[in-house]
Amino acid sequence: MQLLKTTDTDFSVRFKALVSDRREATVDVSGTVKNILADVKVRGDAAVQEYTSRFDHYTPPSLHLSADFISEQAAQCPQNVKESLQLAADRIGSFHQKQLPQNIGYTDTAGVKLGLNWVSLSQVGIYVPGGRASYPSSVLMNALPAKIAGVDRIVMAVPMPGGAINPAVLAAAQIAGVTEIYSIGGAQAIAALAYGTETITPVDKIVGPGNAYVAEAKRQVFGTVGIDSVAGPSEILVVADSQNNPEWIAWDLLSQAEHDPSAQSILITDSAQFAENVIQSIEQILTHLPTKEVATASWQKHGAVILVEDLTESIPILNQLAPEHVELCIDNPQGFADQIKSAGSMFLGRYTPEAIGDYLGGPNHVLPTARSARFASGLSVYDFLKRITYLECNQEALQKIGKAAVTLAETEGLPAHGGSVSIRLQ
Amino acid sequence: MQLLKTTDTDFSVRFKALVSDRREATVDVSGTVKNILADVKVRGDAAVQEYTSRFDHYTPPSLHLSADFISEQAAQCPQNVKESLQLAADRIGSFHQKQLPQNIGYTDTAGVKLGLNWVSLSQVGIYVPGGRASYPSSVLMNALPAKIAGVDRIVMAVPMPGGAINPAVLAAAQIAGVTEIYSIGGAQAIAALAYGTETITPVDKIVGPGNAYVAEAKRQVFGTVGIDSVAGPSEILVVADSQNNPEWIAWDLLSQAEHDPSAQSILITDSAQFAENVIQSIEQILTHLPTKEVATASWQKHGAVILVEDLTESIPILNQLAPEHVELCIDNPQGFADQIKSAGSMFLGRYTPEAIGDYLGGPNHVLPTARSARFASGLSVYDFLKRITYLECNQEALQKIGKAAVTLAETEGLPAHGGSVSIRLQ
Repeated sequence: MQLLKTTDTDFSVRFKALVSDRREATVDVSGTVKNILADVKVRGDAAVQEYTSRFDHYTPPSLHLSADFISEQAAQCPQNVKESLQLAADRIGSFHQKQLPQNIGYTDTAGVKLGLNWVSLSQVGIYVPGGRASYPSSVLMNALPAKIAGVDRIVMAVPMPGGAINPAVLAAAQIAGVTEIYSIGGAQAIAALAYGTETITPVDKIVGPGNAYVAEAKRQVFGTVGIDSVAGPSEILVVADSQNNPEWIAWDLLSQAEHDPSAQSILITDSAQFAENVIQSIEQILTHLPTKEVATASWQKHGAVILVEDLTESIPILNQLAPEHVELCIDNPQGFADQIKSAGSMFLGRYTPEAIGDYLGGPNHVLPTARSARFASGLSVYDFLKRITYLECNQEALQKIGKAAVTLAETEGLPAHGGSVSIRLQ
Repeated sequence: MQLLKTTDTDFSVRFKALVSDRREATVDVSGTVKNILADVKVRGDAAVQEYTSRFDHYTPPSLHLSADFISEQAAQCPQNVKESLQLAADRIGSFHQKQLPQNIGYTDTAGVKLGLNWVSLSQVGIYVPGGRASYPSSVLMNALPAKIAGVDRIVMAVPMPGGAINPAVLAAAQIAGVTEIYSIGGAQAIAALAYGTETITPVDKIVGPGNAYVAEAKRQVFGTVGIDSVAGPSEILVVADSQNNPEWIAWDLLSQAEHDPSAQSILITDSAQFAENVIQSIEQILTHLPTKEVATASWQKHGAVILVEDLTESIPILNQLAPEHVELCIDNPQGFADQIKSAGSMFLGRYTPEAIGDYLGGPNHVLPTARSARFASGLSVYDFLKRITYLECNQEALQKIGKAAVTLAETEGLPAHGGSVSIRLQ
C-alpha cells in the first residue's frame, strides 16, 4: 500500500505512475490462443473435446448439457440462494427494462422520411467462468440484458473443471431463461461460439468475463463476431470524509482486493487520522478474513491512499483514474457525482457498499476496467441491440437535395455516385 | 458477376459460398503494424516524422497544421462545394441531434435511488484517408456526431501524400468545427493518437475508415483507446422489381462497385428479363464510366444477381448477408423494411439512391461491413457517449435488500463482499 499526499512535491510524478500502472502480468498468450482458434475452426468438436480434456481435466460425454442435468444440478441450489437470485433478477431486470430505447422516425422540411430502428441481435454467446471464480451473479448480469433486448438465442459456455459445476450457476441460468448450455471454457469455447462446430451453431456476439486466454481469444475473434470488451482486473476508488466508520470503508476496500491479487483499491480522504484508522482496520480484518491471501497481496501491491486537502480535489484525480467502481461516502453525494466524467458505476452515500451493485442493486456489474471508462461503458441492453437507419426520398424531395449530392460526388471523384442521383433528376 | 436462382438445385451451396466469401486479400500486416506502433510509442514525433517521409513522401515542417494553412487551403474550395457541404452538415447534424438520449433516474419501491447518466467522451481522434480516396463527406460523418455528443477535443489525422491535400477536406473540417489537425496517416497516425507524442496529446477513442494498415493498427490499440469498428470493403444489396428503370438500378450497383475492386454489388429481383436489362445497362455504362477500371473489377469478381420467385424470399437472404447498404426499390417499402434485421442502412423506394445517404441524407455513412451488421451498427452520437450508472441506498433500503446480497456473496465465496454489507446492517 502506498500513501500519496497532494501537498507532497512529488505528488504529480507518483500520481502519474499510479495512473499508468499496468497491473496485469503481460504474459503473451496470443500465439497459444491463435493456434487453439485455428484448430477449433478446422477440427470443430474434436478439437474442443481435446482441449477440454487437457485444460479442464474433464471429458464430458457431450459438450451440450441436457435439460435433465441442468434441472438436477439447479435443484441442489439452496432455497435461500434461489430466492436471493430471484430478487437480484427482478431488480436487474427492472433497471435494464428502463434502458430500452425508442425508435426515431420523421419527415423533414425537404419531404425526406428518415429514421432509426433499434433491432435486437439474433444470437449471442455468454461466457461464464467456471473455475476458482464461479459467479452465478454474472449469469444474471450477462443474460438478462440480452433477454430484455429481445435476443432469440442465448448460448452459455461454462467450463466444468474436473466435471464440477456450482449449482447456483445453473439455477441462475434457469431464472434468466437460458437453456442452451455447453460445458466448455477457455479459448476453445470462444472459438466454438465464434466459428461454430458440428454441435454448436455459431453466434453473432460474445460477452462475459474470463481469464487472459479468454480475453485474448475474444480480441482475436472480434470482427468475425462482436464482443463486449476485453476485461482486466477489478478496481474500486472510495472517496470518504472523516464522518464515516473506518471499519465500513475498510470492508469496502477489501471487497475489491479479495477478487484478485491484481485488483486495486484506492481511498481518497481529507483526513490523515481517518486514513490511518482505515488502514489499521484493514490490517485487523486481514488477520482473519478467509480470502486474506488474495486480499493482502492486492492491498500490499496495488492499494493506495490519497490524502487531499479538500475532497473537491478528488474529482480531477478520479476522472484521470477512470475507475471501474466509485464510492462517494459523503453527505449529499449527487452534486459530487454529477462532476464525475469517467467511471464504470457509482455507489452513493454511506449505505451503498459496492457489493450491493455486484449482486442486486440493478445496474450491471460488467464494467469497464483498466481506465477504459474513459471511452467505454458497462454492459447494458444497448450491447444486444443494433441500430438500422433508413432514408426515403420521393421525387420532389430528391429534386431539392439531389444536386448538392452530385456536386459532392464530383469533388470526391465518384462519377457513378453522381450518376445514380442525376439520372433520377432528369 | 454470377447469377444465382433460388430454384436451382445448387442454390444453397452457392449462396453459402457467397455469404462466406472473404473479399479482401488476407495479407498479414500485423507484424509491420506492431513494429510501427512500438516505435512510435518509444520515439514519438521522430518516429512519426520518419514514417511520414517514408510512406507519404512528404516531410512536413510540423505535424500540426497551422490555422493559417487551414484557412488558405479551405478558401480554395469552390463555393458550390462549400454550400453542398453546408447543406450536408445541416442535414447530418439535424438527424444526429435526434439521437441524443435521455438520462434515467428514479427511486424504486425498496427506496433505492438508481439511474444512468450519459456523459460525452472528453477527447477523440478522427482518421480521414488522404490518398486516392480523400472524402470530405467522411470528415462531416465522423466529426459531427462527436460534436453533437459534446466531445470537448476532436483531433483529426489526415495524411498528405506528397504534401497535397484536398481543399474540400479542410473546408469540411471548418464547417464541422475541427481545428486540431495533423498531417499524418497510416499506422503511425493511429499510434500517435493512441499513445501521444511530444506534439500530440493522446485521445481516448479513434474512429474513421482507413486502409489495411490503419484497420490493423486500430485493432491493436483497442483497449488502450476505444475504436469504432474495423472497416472492410463496401457493399450494396438492391432489391428491385421489374417496375424500375433498369438504368437507374445499374447506376446504383455501380456506385458501390466504383469504390474498390473488393466492393460488392448484389441485385435481387423476381424478373429474369429485368435482371438481364440491368446487366446490359451496367455493361453499357462501364464502356464510358471514368472509374470503369475499379468498377469493372468489382462487378466481374464480386457482383451477383439473385433471381427469386417472389421478392419476399429476399428477406431471409438479406438478413444472412447483413449488407452495409440495402436499397428497396419497390412500392410501399416500409412494411418490407420492418422485416430487415441485419443491415447497416436502408434506402427506400425508387427515388432514394444510396449515394444520397453517402453525402447528405442525414444518417451516417460509416456503416458495418463484411456481415458485421449482424452485431454492429453505423456510427452515431452513441459512439461518443458513455453511460455511468449509479445506485444510492439509505439505511432502510439497505435493510430491505442487503441480506440477499450477503447470501449471494457467501455462495460465491467472497466474505469481504458480504462483510461490507452486513457491517452496515448491524
